[in-house]
Amino acid sequence: MTHRIAILGASGYTGAELVRLISGHPNMSIVALSGQRKAGMAMAEVFPHLRHLDLPVLCRIEDIDFSQVDLCFCALPHKTSQAVIRDLPKGLKIVDLSADFRLREAEAYKRWYGNDHIAMELQAEAVYGLTEFYRDEIRAARLVAGTGCNAATGQFAIRPLISAGVIGLEDIILDMKCAVSGAGRSLKESLLHTELSEGYHAYALGSSHRHIGEFDQEFSALAGRPVRVQFTPHLLPVNRGILCTAYVSGDAAEIHQTLTSAYVGEPFVQVLPFGTAPSTHDVRGSNFVHIGVAGDRIDGRAIVVAVLDNLTKGSSGQALQNANLMLGEDETTALMMAPLFP
Amino acid sequence: MTHRIAILGASGYTGAELVRLISGHPNMSIVALSGQRKAGMAMAEVFPHLRHLDLPVLCRIEDIDFSQVDLCFCALPHKTSQAVIRDLPKGLKIVDLSADFRLREAEAYKRWYGNDHIAMELQAEAVYGLTEFYRDEIRAARLVAGTGCNAATGQFAIRPLISAGVIGLEDIILDMKCAVSGAGRSLKESLLHTELSEGYHAYALGSSHRHIGEFDQEFSALAGRPVRVQFTPHLLPVNRGILCTAYVSGDAAEIHQTLTSAYVGEPFVQVLPFGTAPSTHDVRGSNFVHIGVAGDRIDGRAIVVAVLDNLTKGSSGQALQNANLMLGEDETTALMMAPLFP
Amino acid sequence: MTHRIAILGASGYTGAELVRLISGHPNMSIVALSGQRKAGMAMAEVFPHLRHLDLPVLCRIEDIDFSQVDLCFCALPHKTSQAVIRDLPKGLKIVDLSADFRLREAEAYKRWYGNDHIAMELQAEAVYGLTEFYRDEIRAARLVAGTGCNAATGQFAIRPLISAGVIGLEDIILDMKCAVSGAGRSLKESLLHTELSEGYHAYALGSSHRHIGEFDQEFSALAGRPVRVQFTPHLLPVNRGILCTAYVSGDAAEIHQTLTSAYVGEPFVQVLPFGTAPSTHDVRGSNFVHIGVAGDRIDGRAIVVAVLDNLTKGSSGQALQNANLMLGEDETTALMMAPLFP
Amino acid sequence: MTHRIAILGASGYTGAELVRLISGHPNMSIVALSGQRKAGMAMAEVFPHLRHLDLPVLCRIEDIDFSQVDLCFCALPHKTSQAVIRDLPKGLKIVDLSADFRLREAEAYKRWYGNDHIAMELQAEAVYGLTEFYRDEIRAARLVAGTGCNAATGQFAIRPLISAGVIGLEDIILDMKCAVSGAGRSLKESLLHTELSEGYHAYALGSSHRHIGEFDQEFSALAGRPVRVQFTPHLLPVNRGILCTAYVSGDAAEIHQTLTSAYVGEPFVQVLPFGTAPSTHDVRGSNFVHIGVAGDRIDGRAIVVAVLDNLTKGSSGQALQNANLMLGEDETTALMMAPLFP
Repeated sequence: MTHRIAILGASGYTGAELVRLISGHPNMSIVALSGQRKAGMAMAEVFPHLRHLDLPVLCRIEDIDFSQVDLCFCALPHKTSQAVIRDLPKGLKIVDLSADFRLREAEAYKRWYGNDHIAMELQAEAVYGLTEFYRDEIRAARLVAGTGCNAATGQFAIRPLISAGVIGLEDIILDMKCAVSGAGRSLKESLLHTELSEGYHAYALGSSHRHIGEFDQEFSALAGRPVRVQFTPHLLPVNRGILCTAYVSGDAAEIHQTLTSAYVGEPFVQVLPFGTAPSTHDVRGSNFVHIGVAGDRIDGRAIVVAVLDNLTKGSSGQALQNANLMLGEDETTALMMAPLFP
Repeated sequence: MTHRIAILGASGYTGAELVRLISGHPNMSIVALSGQRKAGMAMAEVFPHLRHLDLPVLCRIEDIDFSQVDLCFCALPHKTSQAVIRDLPKGLKIVDLSADFRLREAEAYKRWYGNDHIAMELQAEAVYGLTEFYRDEIRAARLVAGTGCNAATGQFAIRPLISAGVIGLEDIILDMKCAVSGAGRSLKESLLHTELSEGYHAYALGSSHRHIGEFDQEFSALAGRPVRVQFTPHLLPVNRGILCTAYVSGDAAEIHQTLTSAYVGEPFVQVLPFGTAPSTHDVRGSNFVHIGVAGDRIDGRAIVVAVLDNLTKGSSGQALQNANLMLGEDETTALMMAPLFP
Repeated sequence: MTHRIAILGASGYTGAELVRLISGHPNMSIVALSGQRKAGMAMAEVFPHLRHLDLPVLCRIEDIDFSQVDLCFCALPHKTSQAVIRDLPKGLKIVDLSADFRLREAEAYKRWYGNDHIAMELQAEAVYGLTEFYRDEIRAARLVAGTGCNAATGQFAIRPLISAGVIGLEDIILDMKCAVSGAGRSLKESLLHTELSEGYHAYALGSSHRHIGEFDQEFSALAGRPVRVQFTPHLLPVNRGILCTAYVSGDAAEIHQTLTSAYVGEPFVQVLPFGTAPSTHDVRGSNFVHIGVAGDRIDGRAIVVAVLDNLTKGSSGQALQNANLMLGEDETTALMMAPLFP
Repeated sequence: MTHRIAILGASGYTGAELVRLISGHPNMSIVALSGQRKAGMAMAEVFPHLRHLDLPVLCRIEDIDFSQVDLCFCALPHKTSQAVIRDLPKGLKIVDLSADFRLREAEAYKRWYGNDHIAMELQAEAVYGLTEFYRDEIRAARLVAGTGCNAATGQFAIRPLISAGVIGLEDIILDMKCAVSGAGRSLKESLLHTELSEGYHAYALGSSHRHIGEFDQEFSALAGRPVRVQFTPHLLPVNRGILCTAYVSGDAAEIHQTLTSAYVGEPFVQVLPFGTAPSTHDVRGSNFVHIGVAGDRIDGRAIVVAVLDNLTKGSSGQALQNANLMLGEDETTALMMAPLFP
C-alpha cells in the first residue's frame, strides 16, 4: 500500500530534504507540494538537484485536496505553522517540523517565541518527536512535533544520563556548533557566503537561544525537578552537521556505560569506544548520531560529544522516521543510507 | 540471488564510495575488502562514516579466497592494478577503476603513464566502461575498465556531437574544473586543506594531463580520424564535483537537439533546457549527469557544460552501474539516490 | 600633506576594502563615509573588522561637505553612480568603482546595462582605470573609471599580445573563474552560503556577461579593428580571487616573451617562468597579478592564465593605485602588502 | 638603523607569516632563511605568494653566519628547537615560536611533551612571550618563548579575571575552536582537504592537549595556588582563526568591566560592548584580539569569548611584536594592518 504524502513548505531546505529521502521510500508517494511564494513553479526550477524526480508542481496550501492525503509534513516557519495546522482536517496525520508544537506550556511558548499560541488545543495531542524516547507515543499519534536540531543533538548526549541519575544537574554545559543550513533558506545578510565562509562566531550568548525551551521542558520532566543548562550555539561555515560538546559532572566510565546501554539496539545511534571523538563528517547526509565520551583529567568531570546531520536526523530524517511509525512502516525505511564522505 | 563482492583498495575514497553505494544494493553482499597497508583494521577505523555497516575486516589481497567471489572491484593505483588483475582467476568478473585498461594501445599507455604495460593480453578483452556508450559490450564483458573522471565528463558533453557530425573537430576545447577528491587519499603537501581551501589554480597546462589519452582514443574512434582536443584541468576547493566547459564550433540549437536526442531514455543523463547552466551542487553524491548548452554571441560557436560527481558517476557509481549490467541486475539498482543539497 | 578622502558606498565590500587599504596610507585621511541605508551607524557595527580604526560615522551623501574633500571614491551601484557623480562639484577628483564610466559609447552602455546613460558629458573626460595601460592619462585625470574585475583579469592576460600582434584575433576564449565577493553584499538567495559552498557553476553562458563590453572596447581599440572574444564566467565558492584561463592561437614562447617584456618594471604584475600555473592563493588580499603561459601539444595553440584578487587589484586596490597617481603620490603607496597565505 | 633578521624554519606557515609581516617593517631586513629539507630553493618556489619580495635563498642552519644577525626567529618544531638554540651564539637575540621554552619546570615539559629537555639552562633566561602581560621582561630579554596559539587565546580571556579575583577558580571551562593552519604544513592524512572541509570534530578529549601545560603554569602563578581548567580543542575547516568560549562563574558585568579596564590602551586588544559576540572573520590576517562577554540566564555564570588569528597574534604576529620590543622599536610597527574581510 502506498501512502499519499503532502509536504507544506517544500521550497525550503527541510522540504527539499524530505523529498530527497522520500524519493527512496518504496511505500510513499508525494501527491502535493506547497510553496506559497513559488506556487506554480516546478520543483526542478526551485531545486534543480531534484529534477530527475517526477514531482507535483508547487501549489498553494489552499489548493491541496487533503482528503487525498494520508500524511502531511509541515515544513513551515513557526507561527505560520500553527495557523495552517489548526485549519487542516482533524483526522489528517501530521508531522510538523516547526517549533510550534514542541513546548507543552503556552507560557513557555510565549516566553521563547514572543507571540501567543493560537492553537493550544492541538498542543494537547501533540507528541514530542524525539523518536528514540517517544517511540510508542509517536506510533499512536496524529500530530507529532519535530524537535529543534540543537535540541535533538543535546538530548541525545544527555537524556539517558539524567534518567540514570549519573550526572549532576546543576552544571550541565552544552557548547553547540551548528551548520549554516540550520538557518534555512532565508535572505539575511549574515547568511551570505562572503559573511560566513572562512570564519565562525558564537551567537545568542547567555543561553538565550530558543531551543533552550526544549531542554528545560525535557530535562526537567526527566529529572522530576527543574533543570536548567547553559547553552551556547556557534555558527560554522559548513552546510550540514551539528556537534554538541557537553561538559558534565559524573564518572566518565559510568556515563559511557549508561549511554551504551541506553542505545543498544537503536538503529541510528552509535556510541563510540570510550575516548573516541566523533566527527560531523561521519554522519553527513545520513540519519545517524555518533556519540563519544571521555573523562577529564579533573576527577568527576566528563565530556560527552554528540554529532548528527541537522537537516537529516536533526529535522527531515527524524520527521520521516516518525512518519514511518505513524503509518505502520518499519521505522528505518528509506533512512539507512550511508553518510556521504568525503 | 546475492552476488558476492570483493573490493580491492577499500581504504581509498573510491573504495569507500563503493561500500556506500553497495550498502544500499539488495542483491550484493561484500565478502572481502583489501587494504595492504591497513590490513587487519576494521573499516570503522579507516572510515568511521561506515561504522553502522557490518563489513569484513580489511585484509591483504593474497588472503582473499576468490573462488567465493562473484565480482571484484579493483580500486588500486594504476600499475599496481595490472599486476594484481593479471594474477586473479581468469573467470572472475572484474571492474577496474584504475587507468590500466582504458587505453587499447600499449604505446598510448606508455606515453601517458610512463611505464610498460605488463598485462596487455588482458587489455584485449577489456571493455571501456562508459556505460551509456558501451552498454552491450559491458553486459557481456568479464573485465571492464572504468574511465577517468575528467574523461567521463568531457565525453558526456562531446561524444554525441562527434557521432552526429554537428561540431568541428579541429577546435574542441575542454576547460575542466575538478574537485579535490579526484586526487585520492594521498599524502601530498599540495592536497592539504591549508594549501587548497579559499583558492584555485590550473595544472597540467598545455594538454598534458593523462586523461587526454582517453579523449584521443575515444574521439578519434568516433570520428574515424584523429581528433585532438585542448584540455586544461583546474583544482577547486570542494570535495566532489567536476564541471566541463566545452567550447565548440557548430550550431547551438542543433547541438542541444543532438544531445537531447542522444540521451532520451537514459536514466542518469539530464539535458537541461537550452541556455540553462548546470551546477555541481545539483549532482553531489549522485550518479546523475547534467548537461547545458548555449549559443555564443559569435555565430557558429557554442558552449556545452557538463557536470557530475567525480566519485560517483565519475568513478564508483559508474563502476557499480557496470557491475549491475555484468551481473544481470537492473542497471540502476542502488544508484537512483537523489543528490545531497545543500 | 594629507589628502582628504571620501568614500561613497562604504557599507559594501569594495568600500570596506578601500578603508582597509587606506588605513595603511601615510598621506590619506578618511573624512567622510556614506551609506544611505546605514547612515548613522558606526563602521564598527557595519564592519566589525574595522573597529580598531577611528572612522567617521556613516552619513548620507547629501550630508558631506565636498569642499573639504580632495578625492572621492565612489563605490556605488552602476546607474546610481552616474546620478551621484553628475551632481558632485566639478573640480573634485573622483575614482568611480562602478560600471558607469567604463564604456565610451552611449550605445554600448545601453546595450550592456539596459538603461540610458544620464551623464555622458562626464564620460568624455573619464579615463579607463587599468593603471598599467593608462598611467599617464590617469595621472592627469579628474575622473577615473575603475574596470570590471573580470575585465581587468582578462586584459592583463591579453592586451600586450594584441598590441604586439602575436596572437590571432578570431578565436580568443576567456574562461573565467570568479570568487563570490565579486557579487557584492547583495541579498540574493543565490549568494547564500548554503547555495554556494561545496559546488560551482557557470553563468551568463554565451558571452552575455556585461564585462564583455569592456573587452570589446579595449581589444578593438588596441587592434584597430573589431575584436570579439568568447567569455564564460563561473562562480566559485571562495571569497576572493579571479582566475582567467585564456585560449589563444600563437607561438607560446613568443607569447611568454611578449608578456614578460610588457610587464618589466611593473611593480604589481609578475610573469611566472614558462609553463608555471599561477594560483589565486598567491595573490589573496594583495594588489598583485600573476600570469603563467604554456604551449599546448597542438602547434600554434597556447594557454595564458592570469590571477588576481578581485576586491584588491580587481577593484579597490586598483582604485587606490589610480588615486595615488591622481594625487601625486607614489603609485605603490599602501599597496605593497604581501598576500595572505594560507 | 636596520635590524638584520634570520628566520629558522622558513618553509613552514609561521615562517612564511613572519616574512609577510616583516616585509612591511621599515627597520628590519631579512638576511637569512633556513629550511633544512628545502635548502637551496628560492622562497618563490616554496611560497609563491612571496615571489614579489627579494629574499635570501633557503639555506641550512649551519650555513648562516650569525655574527651578521641581530635577531633570530626560530620557527622549528619543538625538541629540534631546543637543540638548535642551545648551539646559537650566546649573545644573539632569539624569539622562539616552538613549545620548547614555554614551560619553566623540566618536569612539566616532560609530562606534556614526552621527552627530556636538553637545554634547561636556557629556560632560566627565557621570558614567556604573551606580550601584553610580560612587556617589561620581554623588552629586556635575550630569549623569548612564543606562546601556544590556543594558550594565548584562552589567556586573553581569563588572565585579568584571575588577577582581579572576579571568577571562581574551580570550574573554568575553555571550549576552543581552532583553524587548520595551527597544525602546520605537516603531511598527515587527517589534514587533507578532503578529510577536513565541510565538517569538524573535537580532539584531545579530556583536557589532554599540550597547551594545557601553559594554562596550568600561568593561571596558577597568577592565582598563587594551583588552577586547573578544562580545555577541549576542536578542529574547524577554515585556515585561520581561533575562538575560545570560556564558561566561568562570576558576575558578568564585573567581568566585562575588569576586562575593559585591563586592556585600556592596549593597541591590539578590543573588548566589545557587553553582550556582543566576536567573530574570527573580524581578525583574520591581523594582530588583533576581540573579546566579548555576556551573562548567562543562570545567576553567577558568565561567558567570555575571545578570538584571534592563530598565525598572526597567536604566533608570528606575537613574535614580531616581541621582537619590536627587544630591538627598541615601537611595539606596533608593521603590525597595525587591518584584518582581511571578506
